Amino acid sequence: MSDWYRVQSIGRVVRPDDPGGIPGSFFDPSFEAVIEIDRRWQDGLIGIEDYSHLVVLFFLHLQQHRRAPGHSRPAEGKTDLPRVGFFATRTPKRPNPIGISCPRLIHREGTRLTVVGLDAWHGTPVLDIKGYSPRDELRPDWSVPDWLEALWAEHDAQRPGGRRLWEPENWSPE
Amino acid sequence: MSDWYRVQSIGRVVRPDDPGGIPGSFFDPSFEAVIEIDRRWQDGLIGIEDYSHLVVLFFLHLQQHRRAPGHSRPAEGKTDLPRVGFFATRTPKRPNPIGISCPRLIHREGTRLTVVGLDAWHGTPVLDIKGYSPRDELRPDWSVPDWLEALWAEHDAQRPGGRRLWEPENWSPE
Repeated sequence: MSDWYRVQSIGRVVRPDDPGGIPGSFFDPSFEAVIEIDRRWQDGLIGIEDYSHLVVLFFLHLQQHRRAPGHSRPAEGKTDLPRVGFFATRTPKRPNPIGISCPRLIHREGTRLTVVGLDAWHGTPVLDIKGYSPRDELRPDWSVPDWLEALWAEHDAQRPGGRRLWEPENWSPE
Repeated sequence: MSDWYRVQSIGRVVRPDDPGGIPGSFFDPSFEAVIEIDRRWQDGLIGIEDYSHLVVLFFLHLQQHRRAPGHSRPAEGKTDLPRVGFFATRTPKRPNPIGISCPRLIHREGTRLTVVGLDAWHGTPVLDIKGYSPRDELRPDWSVPDWLEALWAEHDAQRPGGRRLWEPENWSPE
């Protein structure tokens, strides 16, 4: 019943100091990484450096053979949270394991994009890069489920120094 | 040199009154559409209705055989704009023709999601749905290239009633 399509890697995430296996929930918006785009696409990057942020789509390749998500369940297995479906979470176990992240672009050097706040591990294949645009991605009147706000507040409380990272307004350097 | 991966449609965009062929630049944030998810994924949608907005990834299937983008060029062929690469624009002619849109979710009825502001045509195959989250998608300190601001201002000036749509802050109903 599904139609299938092919997508290709256009580059990789480079962050060699990534210890691997960090839960996405401990995403650090101040962490620097490099996106290395394949040389054949270099011309496509002209002008990307005039955007403050990128939209990066990547393939969660470590999860590509686990596409049959189970029943609804509480986020992170916390039984005090409501059972929700995988579309309501950021689990990589989804029909198409595509991740999205909107890091700040620091600079471009040819095919190397240095970014801050990319929520992807070392070696992740990148599928697309777009400049972040308020028309397309900024939704100032957002609201999210209560359980998600509670979960993020819990993560924030566990951070060194109690840094509040749930809302991007709190991401200014300390 | 590229690695290739397979992705599948999980549903379709339904907007039967879509005349087709509307340039994306004339995107209307007040336009209602339905996302019809395949029945097999229905459990995955539990709880999605508690998000105000969705992140929708879709495959630009009409462009799937035009993946070899040309040289850098001005947006919309306007020769008074600078030449930029395809990554710096939203052209569907890109190595992976994946679109992204963040519509407001109005309600869910089983596998049918009624949304407002989905920038995709009738029949477009949907690849993924996520709840819009400020941690992941909200970047209040965005900035974009001067040429893009000029281009959007020009589009706004051409709209009936001169509605300013470039910034989502101006999307309140009139």
